[in-house]
Amino acid sequence: MIKNLLLSLIFLTVLSIAVQAQEALFGAQQIISPEVHDDASVTFRLLAPKAQSVQITGDFLPTVKMETPRGTFDGPGKADLTKDDKGVWTYKSEVLKPELYNYSFIIDGFTTTDPNNPFLIRDVASATNIFIVGGGHADLFKVNDVPHGSVTRRWYDSPGLGMDRRITIYTPPGYENSKDSYPVLYLLHGAGGDEEAWINLGRTSQILDNLIAEGKAKPMIVVMPNGNVIQDGAPGEGSKGFYKPQFMVAKTMDGTYEANFKDIISFVESNYRVKADKSNRAIAGLSMGGYHSLHISNNYPNMFDYVGLFSAAIMPREDATGKIYDNFDGKLKAEMDNGYKLYWIAIGKTDFLYDANKEFRAKLDAMNMPYEYVESEGGHTWRNWRVYLTEFAPKLFNQ
Amino acid sequence: MIKNLLLSLIFLTVLSIAVQAQEALFGAQQIISPEVHDDASVTFRLLAPKAQSVQITGDFLPTVKMETPRGTFDGPGKADLTKDDKGVWTYKSEVLKPELYNYSFIIDGFTTTDPNNPFLIRDVASATNIFIVGGGHADLFKVNDVPHGSVTRRWYDSPGLGMDRRITIYTPPGYENSKDSYPVLYLLHGAGGDEEAWINLGRTSQILDNLIAEGKAKPMIVVMPNGNVIQDGAPGEGSKGFYKPQFMVAKTMDGTYEANFKDIISFVESNYRVKADKSNRAIAGLSMGGYHSLHISNNYPNMFDYVGLFSAAIMPREDATGKIYDNFDGKLKAEMDNGYKLYWIAIGKTDFLYDANKEFRAKLDAMNMPYEYVESEGGHTWRNWRVYLTEFAPKLFNQ
Repeated sequence: MIKNLLLSLIFLTVLSIAVQAQEALFGAQQIISPEVHDDASVTFRLLAPKAQSVQITGDFLPTVKMETPRGTFDGPGKADLTKDDKGVWTYKSEVLKPELYNYSFIIDGFTTTDPNNPFLIRDVASATNIFIVGGGHADLFKVNDVPHGSVTRRWYDSPGLGMDRRITIYTPPGYENSKDSYPVLYLLHGAGGDEEAWINLGRTSQILDNLIAEGKAKPMIVVMPNGNVIQDGAPGEGSKGFYKPQFMVAKTMDGTYEANFKDIISFVESNYRVKADKSNRAIAGLSMGGYHSLHISNNYPNMFDYVGLFSAAIMPREDATGKIYDNFDGKLKAEMDNGYKLYWIAIGKTDFLYDANKEFRAKLDAMNMPYEYVESEGGHTWRNWRVYLTEFAPKLFNQ
Repeated sequence: MIKNLLLSLIFLTVLSIAVQAQEALFGAQQIISPEVHDDASVTFRLLAPKAQSVQITGDFLPTVKMETPRGTFDGPGKADLTKDDKGVWTYKSEVLKPELYNYSFIIDGFTTTDPNNPFLIRDVASATNIFIVGGGHADLFKVNDVPHGSVTRRWYDSPGLGMDRRITIYTPPGYENSKDSYPVLYLLHGAGGDEEAWINLGRTSQILDNLIAEGKAKPMIVVMPNGNVIQDGAPGEGSKGFYKPQFMVAKTMDGTYEANFKDIISFVESNYRVKADKSNRAIAGLSMGGYHSLHISNNYPNMFDYVGLFSAAIMPREDATGKIYDNFDGKLKAEMDNGYKLYWIAIGKTDFLYDANKEFRAKLDAMNMPYEYVESEGGHTWRNWRVYLTEFAPKLFNQ
C-alpha cells in the first residue's frame, strides 16, 4: 500500500503541474507576497530571476503628477524592487495608514499581477491585486468574527427592459430566521461597473456586517443592480458570455435605466420582507450611479427619504435624451417640497467632477434645498466610495 | 458648460490612470485576447514591446511528458507567440474542441496572467485566465438565456465545530416563488478548495441552470460547503483574512469534517424547503471530497440514496485517525444492505488515483456491492470534474 507521505507528494506534484505554479516545489522557498508587518509596513516579493527590472505601482505609494493631452492628473506612484542572489525581488513599503490598497507589478515594463497573491478585484477590464492594512476604518473592510449577512446573486424579471437581469442582494444577519421587515438601500455602480462592483470593489457586505455588529447601522437590505440596460448581467455572468468589458456602455445615461427602475423596486418589494414606505427606502450611487440616483430620486416622487450622491456625474449630457430628464429644476423643487430626511453629497477635492458638483450645490443653495455635504481628500476612486458608504449607511433609517 | 465628449475623454483618462491600463488610450489599438473565432480556433494577443520571448501555456495545448523526481506526469504544453512591429505578440491555436480552457502567458520566463482577459479563476493559490469554446457539453458551462437559479453565500452555525461557517447554496429557478420542496445535492470540493471551488471552477450554477432548462436534471438545491474544518470561510472570505492558500490544510482528512457533517444537513433542512428523506439526498465530491462523500455516506446510515465519487482520494491514510473510519468494511456492507439507488464512480485513465480506485472497485466487486463506473480520458483535473457533474446530476432524483 502506498503511504500517505508519498501520496501527498504526488498530490502536490500533480497539483503544481495543474496550476502551473511558478515556484519549483521541492527546494524552492515559499514566496509570501504581500506580507503585512505588525508595524503596518508591507513587503512585496516576486521570484523573477530573468527580469532586468521590477517595479511596483499602487495606491499605497504617493501619487505623482501625470501630464496628458487633456491636462494634469494624479497618477499612481512607482517604486523599484531589488533583487537578491536567488532571483527574488523585494520592496518594503513605508508604514502605511489603515486602508484597502491595490497594486500591480511592472516587470521589464510590463504591468501584471502578483502571482503569489490570488486576491484580485476586477475594475472594468483590469484585475489588480489587493491587500488590507488593518486598523481604523479599514477594519470595516475585513471579514471579522461578527454575525454575517447573506449575499445572493439572483435574476429579476424586468418587463420594461424585456429581459431577466442579474442582481446582487445583501440581506442582514438574521434576516432568514426573522419575521421582521427591513429597510432597503439601493446602491448603484458607476460607468464600467455592474452588479459585481459594489460587492467586490466596494466591500459592501463586510462594511454592513461590521457596522451592524457595532450598532452603527440599522440592519438593512442592500440591493445592487446592474445599471447597464443593454446587459442582462455583468461581463462573464450574463448571456453575452466572456468579452472585454468597456468603460462606456451604450444607453447607460439616456434615461432608460431610470425609467425602468420601478421593475427593480417591484421585484425587491414583492420578494423580500421590506418596509415598503418612503422612510425605509434609500438610494445612493457613485459617479454614473450618482447621476442615476439623482434622477431616480426626483422622478419617483415620494419614494426615497434618503439620497446619496458619491462623486456624482452631475452634468448636462448630450445623450440625456430621455423624458426622465425633462423639467429637472421643477422636479428638484417638487422633491424638496415633498420632503426627505437626507440628501447627502460627497466628493473628493481632486475629483474631476468637483466643479460640476460645486455648481450643483450652488443650484441647491439658490433654491434653499437642504443637503449634507462631505468633502474628502483624493479623487474619483473606490477608496473614497468605500469610505462614503461607511459614512452614509449609519445615517439611514434612524427615525 | 463642458460638453459630453470632452467629459467622456476626461472620464476615460482618469479611469485609465486609476486602473493602470497597460494600453495607451489615445491612438493605441484595442487589444482583444483571447478571441474565439467562428471556426473554434482562438487568437491570443499581448502588447509587450520590450519582451524578448512570449509563450502561452494552457490545457488547450497538447500535454507534454514532464519528468520529476516523483515520476513522469502529463504537463501542459507551451507554444511561442510571434511579435509584430507594434510590439503585439500573437498566437493562433488549432481548431479546438468545445471546452472551458485555462491558460497563462510566459513572458521572458515569467508565468503571468493575460492583462486583456479579466476572467480569472483561482485554484488554490493561483489565478489563471479562462475561456470557453462553445458547442457540445461546453454549452452547459455558459450563461445561456434560460431561467436562472440563485446563488447565495451565507453562514451556518456549526455547533460541532464551534463556529459560524460560510457556505454556498444554489437554489433552482423558481425556488423563491414556489411552495414546492426540493431534493438536495451536497457537492464537496477537493484538497486546496473551499466553498468557492465548485461554484467558480466547477461552473455549478451554469451546469444546473442548463440541465434543468433542457429537462435533463430535476430542479434541485446544491449545497457547496467548506471541507476544511480549520477555516470558517475560503481564504479572503473568512475571519483569517487574506493569506496565501495552501494545498494541504490541517485536519481535512482526520474525520472531523465527516463527524460534523450533520450540522450542514441540519442547517439545510431547517432553512430550505427540502424533501428531507433518503431518496431526495445525494452526496458527491471530487478527490478529497470523494473521500469525504465515501465516508459520510457510510457513516450516516440511510441518509443518501445517491453517492458520487469523482476521482476520489480512496486510500488508507495515516492521518485518518477519527472513529468515523473504524470498521470501514462493515459500514460499507451495512450501506449496501440498507440499499441505495446509485453509487457512481468516475475517474480519468491517467489520474494518479486510478489504481486506488481500481482496488476499491475490486473490493466492491468482491462484496457484490453495486455501482456504476465511468472511465474518462485525462487525469485529476477540473475539466473532468465539470463533465462528471454534467453526467451525474441527470441521474439524480428520478424515481
